[in-house]
Amino acid sequence: MPKLRVNNFTITLDGYAAGVHQTREHPFGTIESPVLHEWMFATRFGHEMMGEEGGGEGIDNLLALAGDHGVGATIMGRNMYGQILGEWEDGWTGWWGPNPPFHHPVFVLTHQPHEPIPMEGGTTFHFVSDGIEAALEQASAAAGGQDVRIGGGASTVQQYLRARLVDELHIAIAPIFAGAGERLFDHLDGGPVGYEVVEQVSIGTVTHVRIVKT
Amino acid sequence: MPKLRVNNFTITLDGYAAGVHQTREHPFGTIESPVLHEWMFATRFGHEMMGEEGGGEGIDNLLALAGDHGVGATIMGRNMYGQILGEWEDGWTGWWGPNPPFHHPVFVLTHQPHEPIPMEGGTTFHFVSDGIEAALEQASAAAGGQDVRIGGGASTVQQYLRARLVDELHIAIAPIFAGAGERLFDHLDGGPVGYEVVEQVSIGTVTHVRIVKT
Repeated sequence: MPKLRVNNFTITLDGYAAGVHQTREHPFGTIESPVLHEWMFATRFGHEMMGEEGGGEGIDNLLALAGDHGVGATIMGRNMYGQILGEWEDGWTGWWGPNPPFHHPVFVLTHQPHEPIPMEGGTTFHFVSDGIEAALEQASAAAGGQDVRIGGGASTVQQYLRARLVDELHIAIAPIFAGAGERLFDHLDGGPVGYEVVEQVSIGTVTHVRIVKT
Repeated sequence: MPKLRVNNFTITLDGYAAGVHQTREHPFGTIESPVLHEWMFATRFGHEMMGEEGGGEGIDNLLALAGDHGVGATIMGRNMYGQILGEWEDGWTGWWGPNPPFHHPVFVLTHQPHEPIPMEGGTTFHFVSDGIEAALEQASAAAGGQDVRIGGGASTVQQYLRARLVDELHIAIAPIFAGAGERLFDHLDGGPVGYEVVEQVSIGTVTHVRIVKT
């Protein structure tokens, strides 16, 4: 049975997935993304993503790899696709350059319909404006029997958690503080209800936490 | 140089030190204290505190012990001393029975002055109504060269963090969710500013984090 997963979702020790003042230049706002995601950039997986050699091959790397493995489609929020408020801007195709690291269909939740945008390397951005269930249906169909991953951001994960549609989450807690911004575990109506922490592992400076639906 | 410390301060994975609806019967409100503090109750330190034999002797126990070691005075907020809104109630002497586990002077921050309350076993509750610096001065003097510990709750820790008076914190992250309540790392004006996470260790199901002033 294919799952709906969240993987390698990194938050600060005080719980923030992104800071305030998010812009095109600073997608994570007042949180420095290289610092937040340092654990992943340091892995072999991270190095390969940046087209570099080397990188750590320990548990951080295994978890980073596992987050990509068996995923046939990604869902993300409009804000993760681009800090675009108001009308679509011509030519914007996300943060990831001509060959985004997804290599499968990506479904962007948005209130503003848009034609699909095919990219190099197998990624196509689809735009879904009829809700999270519709996006999940389309993503599941496109995933061809593989899992669907929620890329982010926090608000999108929260919407799926509130609907109890997420099967498992792997989050990484980075040893830094943000002080303000968007928290992952917020706006969950007293929850996440019906989820259990099944593993906590501190590796070097990051703590990996695995959470499953009970 | 004596330090101002926070030790064994346990929060949920979503960051809460206490839930909502705190009452005399449920000091942590919607968070069940035995669940939140299970890691500590399971140690030899915790067993001794409850007058029982046995208990774990691993790193959880060492950290629990270290949190008490070298402490000459404790500061706590009015809310940690008792869920008393409005006037003092006659006869209330805290949650801890006739022989509280402090065994040294305890300074309670409150806007309502009150005579000191001597208890069995070396604990005396003093009531300080002229601010956090005054409480720290009095506690430092009473500690006789030993460290001063902030017992809690979250709001009291925040006040001292904002003033950059805390030298180090040891927090434990329990693998449970609260969904609502009082977060430790909140109301810190974008901080804690000038603090660094120096260690994260997951032991069984709790993650210990050590944070120091830089």
